[in-house]
Amino acid sequence: MKIRLQIYILGKVMAIEGLLILLPVICGLIYGELRNSVIYALFAIFYIAIGILISFKKPEKVTIYLKDGCIATALSWIVLSVCGCLPFVVTGEIPSFTNAMFETVSGFTTTGASILTNVEGLSHISLMWRSLTHWIGGMGVLVFLLAVVPMSGGSNLNLMKAESPGPSVGKFVPKVRTTAKALYMIYLALTLIEIIVLAIAGMPIFDSICSAFGTAGTGGFGIRNDSFTSYAPHIQWIVAVFMIMFGINFNFYYLLISRQPGKAVKLSEIKVYLAIILISTVMITVNILKVTGSSHEAARHAFFQVATVITTTGFATADFDTWPTLSKLLLVILMFCGACAGSTGGGVKISRLQIRTKTIAREIRSYINPRSVKKVQIDGKAIEPELERSVSVFFFVYLLIFTASTILVSLEGHDLVTTFTSVAATINNIGPGLSMVGPTSNYAFLNGLSKWVLIFDMLAGRLELFPIIIFLTPMTYKGALKGFHSLKQN
Amino acid sequence: MKIRLQIYILGKVMAIEGLLILLPVICGLIYGELRNSVIYALFAIFYIAIGILISFKKPEKVTIYLKDGCIATALSWIVLSVCGCLPFVVTGEIPSFTNAMFETVSGFTTTGASILTNVEGLSHISLMWRSLTHWIGGMGVLVFLLAVVPMSGGSNLNLMKAESPGPSVGKFVPKVRTTAKALYMIYLALTLIEIIVLAIAGMPIFDSICSAFGTAGTGGFGIRNDSFTSYAPHIQWIVAVFMIMFGINFNFYYLLISRQPGKAVKLSEIKVYLAIILISTVMITVNILKVTGSSHEAARHAFFQVATVITTTGFATADFDTWPTLSKLLLVILMFCGACAGSTGGGVKISRLQIRTKTIAREIRSYINPRSVKKVQIDGKAIEPELERSVSVFFFVYLLIFTASTILVSLEGHDLVTTFTSVAATINNIGPGLSMVGPTSNYAFLNGLSKWVLIFDMLAGRLELFPIIIFLTPMTYKGALKGFHSLKQN
Repeated sequence: MKIRLQIYILGKVMAIEGLLILLPVICGLIYGELRNSVIYALFAIFYIAIGILISFKKPEKVTIYLKDGCIATALSWIVLSVCGCLPFVVTGEIPSFTNAMFETVSGFTTTGASILTNVEGLSHISLMWRSLTHWIGGMGVLVFLLAVVPMSGGSNLNLMKAESPGPSVGKFVPKVRTTAKALYMIYLALTLIEIIVLAIAGMPIFDSICSAFGTAGTGGFGIRNDSFTSYAPHIQWIVAVFMIMFGINFNFYYLLISRQPGKAVKLSEIKVYLAIILISTVMITVNILKVTGSSHEAARHAFFQVATVITTTGFATADFDTWPTLSKLLLVILMFCGACAGSTGGGVKISRLQIRTKTIAREIRSYINPRSVKKVQIDGKAIEPELERSVSVFFFVYLLIFTASTILVSLEGHDLVTTFTSVAATINNIGPGLSMVGPTSNYAFLNGLSKWVLIFDMLAGRLELFPIIIFLTPMTYKGALKGFHSLKQN
Repeated sequence: MKIRLQIYILGKVMAIEGLLILLPVICGLIYGELRNSVIYALFAIFYIAIGILISFKKPEKVTIYLKDGCIATALSWIVLSVCGCLPFVVTGEIPSFTNAMFETVSGFTTTGASILTNVEGLSHISLMWRSLTHWIGGMGVLVFLLAVVPMSGGSNLNLMKAESPGPSVGKFVPKVRTTAKALYMIYLALTLIEIIVLAIAGMPIFDSICSAFGTAGTGGFGIRNDSFTSYAPHIQWIVAVFMIMFGINFNFYYLLISRQPGKAVKLSEIKVYLAIILISTVMITVNILKVTGSSHEAARHAFFQVATVITTTGFATADFDTWPTLSKLLLVILMFCGACAGSTGGGVKISRLQIRTKTIAREIRSYINPRSVKKVQIDGKAIEPELERSVSVFFFVYLLIFTASTILVSLEGHDLVTTFTSVAATINNIGPGLSMVGPTSNYAFLNGLSKWVLIFDMLAGRLELFPIIIFLTPMTYKGALKGFHSLKQN
């Protein structure tokens, strides 16, 4: 268990969250929202103080096993969410705790599913904090921690592994801290570029910042009630392109800036990702021509919606719930497919699908010709049986959680499509589903049980199941209890 | 490829089909349906003649590899279906070839999805043949072949493996032929018992025979337009119990008749199967109380529908499409779950779920404590890594075929639930789905493309994917082509 280490990490996480809340406070002061600014500032100071206090004493040097990384990750995200939602409750902007938790978890997990019926009624400070949670959650707070805090002891990689999306996340460079820094530098740079491009394109600066946060984290909270529908077409194109950029494996950008463009363009996951986007966009464009009228508009809507769904962002420019079945079905399939590993996107991830597909092809070949058993390779690297197995386990656990969640949500008695897509849109961290949770509606009408089930799904989806599962498995704490018992006996 | 062997097997299959068609011919003569009886009889004689002719020369002794077993199985089922549908076309009872193929494949694969809008309009001979296809397909024609024809050469087991449902099908006794005989004896005995019980319960003898065929094969073709709705409640209870009996692993019955009841009751798959039935029935009973009124009626409808769906039979006593969402969702989940391995039921199979769940539990344990790696066990037997892998591959191939099929069917533009459940109900060999393909409707309205996609799904589902996949993989024939080329060069 390493309780001291866990408390140390939690303290650092709280302090970082406190510091980050100061950004919306500045925004609130600019817009003259005094009362709310004071409340947010008090929370910020409180979190920083508590955080510094409990992480004052550095823990002894210990090895962080995968198990410890999982517990730290699960705990951090829970604390992050609870602390993050309290300002919403206290300012009275989202008075119900359940609703505030739903909105905050939806923010940090970059889901973008909202319980707000009138987004535009929120103050600027709350809107900014809401969008900022996407940005924090996108790359992960523990990765940030690793980037800024020098951690002693071995295997910090297990902290990063537990939080980062996708099976292929490794180290760019031998040192974990350098990798974490590189990730955040790329992330920050791309976000700034988007803010500038959007501002030049004529978007108000407040909108640009919030939209860039939402895009970068592949989150999806909009600051208008109609999401992106009322923004100009050229702004929609820009946002769509940036969504796709944030869905690309960050290895690509690292290879680019370290002057290895040859290696970068060879990454097969990115090729598959772009191919899927292209094919889906063409198919949906043709399919919705009748609905939209002009082919130019059809292409824009198709491209934007494909980008928003495959990257699991969740912005919307059209009510795709009214589109023909083929288009709706393709979007539902893309919900599960997800973006690249090592990006800020959610879902199952392209690389998992690649590994699975290649494993299957090898198995079928081995049935036909039992002597032709080879290792599965991706980008010239052999996939170890261990990774193959963990990917296969991922799929089944995913299915189990998915099934259990739909049963619990179905108790409310809404239609099958609502039940099914509300779970699909949260576990894959997308946001809007179909039918009653479609792009023009929200999650406010659900009852408490359903909301908590979906909160769990959002967390499980963002942390890619295992940290949450291991956190909740009693066996994880067996050793700790044994230690406790032997303490009592002595 | 072993072309001579393949032709030999096809010949035997055709001859057996011809012989089996004589049964409905007798029925047709009893009911005085002269014209149809002559047509059916001519087909029977034609199939028997062709069959004997092409299987006259026994093939040399060869080893049947898994590959050969798969090709033989796929080919046999295609020939069986084409030959089986021609009498429907020629008698004019189902004039369209596509529709007749759909109905026949639905019969042999024990799906029970129908394109008939008025079942009661069919002649007795066609009704009997339609129900008989369920009985033939339930246990499998190749298993029958192995039971009656002495096959020389080794590895006949590969023929049986390719056709029998479930991952755990092995041999009861060392000799394949004895196993096949035992299977068919149990199958026949249970069917006869059901006919007698139904007749005693007051069902007309013709109805009893057809219903027993449909139950035994877990098929689901009814001979009334309302399936089982208008039969007396006690008959519904009897049929439900028999459906569940035919969904049990036949190992159970074999152990019983070979006086090993202790071993029989220990089979964990059957315990899980019965537990799922019990829990689902209770949940649905409570959930539909408001719809049905009396609790007795609710229990009967819940029990019957759970039995019909988990065993993938497809009879109906109630329009479950009008039930609350929880009940509908549970039934959809049971559609995928399926019956026991080694039974006549379809779906994914309980034992596959067991293997997968246990594998996952082991993996999660190994993450927490890397030194605790043990083999997965079921009923005290260790599951070999090979089987574990093939089960994991099965799930993913299943998902891929499922996804591709829904995309193709969605081109028609029916609603999502219709699209989704039409594929679910056919690939799992159930029959009725929800919405437009619900228990009170049929598949007649679908276009040609969708029907052929679903025909493929029914076959793929019944043969459990691999035989069809291997049959369609070009690599399977690589050796054969090489042989052909070297022939030409010499």
